Amino acid sequence: MNDQPLTPDGLPAQVVIREVGLRDGLQIIPRTVLTEAKLEWVRDAYAAGERELEVGSFVPARLLPQLADTAEVLAFAKTLPGVVASVLVPNLRGAERAIAEEAHAILVPISASHAHSLANLRKAPQDVVAEIGRIRAARDAAGSRTLLEVGISTAFGCTIQGEVRAADVVDLVAAVLAAGADRVSLADTVGYADPAMVSRLFEQVLRLAGDRLDTAHFHDTRGLGLANCYAALRLGIRRFDACLGGIGGCPHAPGASGNVATEDLAYMLASMGISTGLDFDALLALRGKLARWLEGEPLHGSLWRAGLPKTMREEVAA
Amino acid sequence: MNDQPLTPDGLPAQVVIREVGLRDGLQIIPRTVLTEAKLEWVRDAYAAGERELEVGSFVPARLLPQLADTAEVLAFAKTLPGVVASVLVPNLRGAERAIAEEAHAILVPISASHAHSLANLRKAPQDVVAEIGRIRAARDAAGSRTLLEVGISTAFGCTIQGEVRAADVVDLVAAVLAAGADRVSLADTVGYADPAMVSRLFEQVLRLAGDRLDTAHFHDTRGLGLANCYAALRLGIRRFDACLGGIGGCPHAPGASGNVATEDLAYMLASMGISTGLDFDALLALRGKLARWLEGEPLHGSLWRAGLPKTMREEVAA
Repeated sequence: MNDQPLTPDGLPAQVVIREVGLRDGLQIIPRTVLTEAKLEWVRDAYAAGERELEVGSFVPARLLPQLADTAEVLAFAKTLPGVVASVLVPNLRGAERAIAEEAHAILVPISASHAHSLANLRKAPQDVVAEIGRIRAARDAAGSRTLLEVGISTAFGCTIQGEVRAADVVDLVAAVLAAGADRVSLADTVGYADPAMVSRLFEQVLRLAGDRLDTAHFHDTRGLGLANCYAALRLGIRRFDACLGGIGGCPHAPGASGNVATEDLAYMLASMGISTGLDFDALLALRGKLARWLEGEPLHGSLWRAGLPKTMREEVAA
Repeated sequence: MNDQPLTPDGLPAQVVIREVGLRDGLQIIPRTVLTEAKLEWVRDAYAAGERELEVGSFVPARLLPQLADTAEVLAFAKTLPGVVASVLVPNLRGAERAIAEEAHAILVPISASHAHSLANLRKAPQDVVAEIGRIRAARDAAGSRTLLEVGISTAFGCTIQGEVRAADVVDLVAAVLAAGADRVSLADTVGYADPAMVSRLFEQVLRLAGDRLDTAHFHDTRGLGLANCYAALRLGIRRFDACLGGIGGCPHAPGASGNVATEDLAYMLASMGISTGLDFDALLALRGKLARWLEGEPLHGSLWRAGLPKTMREEVAA
């Protein structure tokens, strides 16, 4: 990671915020957003400068009816120049569909917590590792260029099992890389991470995975989302998942904040002189639309209320 | 600061959270909390483990009627063994009163922003420096042991002036130390700080002031409060101002979050293995009372809704 440009403070000078609201956000919201609104969301996010979007999930429609139009949203996102559109897939079957639809990337979740894995996927982690191997083989057999990312969920703890040992996470990362993952991300699925844990775990996994660990996924369940992003940034992490309006999050903490809010993370980064390519006015306008589409669902975040500091408004005007 | 115990992550092993809700919190809330409720607040905060409390302000009652009972609250706080009770004073007159009432500490605010200083105190910063010299002389002449802390407000920017130069903050710290301040704190009065700014400014001021800079005061106006605390912690800062329920904050950002929430900061610290002596159940119970006393005022923070992670609940139960 040493060849990447840094700010004078030693932080990555350029960071990608991957918008995961259309998948991670909508996944736990039982309300269906019309496909037309989703396409408007993608179009406006693109106009606001977002270039990486997780657009949905290839799972059976009876499980997540609100994501049943993922193929349509993916097809539309792919028409926008420079977009990287990813799709979550829980298994080979979903991956085959994503490869057939030519998703730019697929994200396969695997839980570092054995208990969470059984509860969520009804599979032990080692069975998911084997499935990742099959997905890699299918991708290669198809001659596909779809990137295979594996997201290590509950990497910082689990509401069922409690503690998740860092050594288990490191072993799991080694296993999924050996099984053929192109890259891995670490996710604080339930909002248990703190900046010291983030520093320790990312350091260990970076030692093993190097550049193949490039994404952090934090929830703001207990208010530490941005502090955790900062801790990961300090280690050179350059891609962060976030949801506009901080939607999503953990179904086990109802009412609590969800994912890190895209607009707040973008503000923290911009304030530190880190380029994200995002436009605040456009982001906040889209947030307003999202509030209407999700009427009744709580949105989160701080920037929408407080606005940019005078110092940054002057910069924008200059 | 090198002789202080550290966690395995190199952070201070013990941190003091100074509860400033009774002053900074109530100051911008036009509702009067009954003296009886304030004493209950102090008593419960003490029972929850809080040992440093800013109990009010010695300013003319016509300016801040909600703080007119500061002497009574101070007198009560002083009856609790081990409490350090501080009072904000804007000038020599207030300081003389605090010295007479034997406050353990007085906090004199001085703004690093010339424009903010004129708007807020109708004095230029250099006039406040001169007043600090007079306060120090009065304290020494009285043979008093009251600690003289100077709080550098708008240290990270100003809603009126915009940018505040770090060099100006450093010069101001040098001036107030020369004028006789025992210690200084840096305050992000309007919520403009980010972790990189915090790292840079604290580093510069620590180089000048050493241990005499021991307190950070952050607002959570744009969601960066805890990230900023983490950045200051990394530099060895061991005392943080906070308000239960995240009340207070900046009158120029109505509706936005206020000070860093005591309970959320305590959670972040405890999660990182940093001792604060605070009891979460007791803090959250007091937060519930506070919500009743301030009925209609928004409280902030995340922990009250999400609760402690299972990992920490197990620790508490063990």
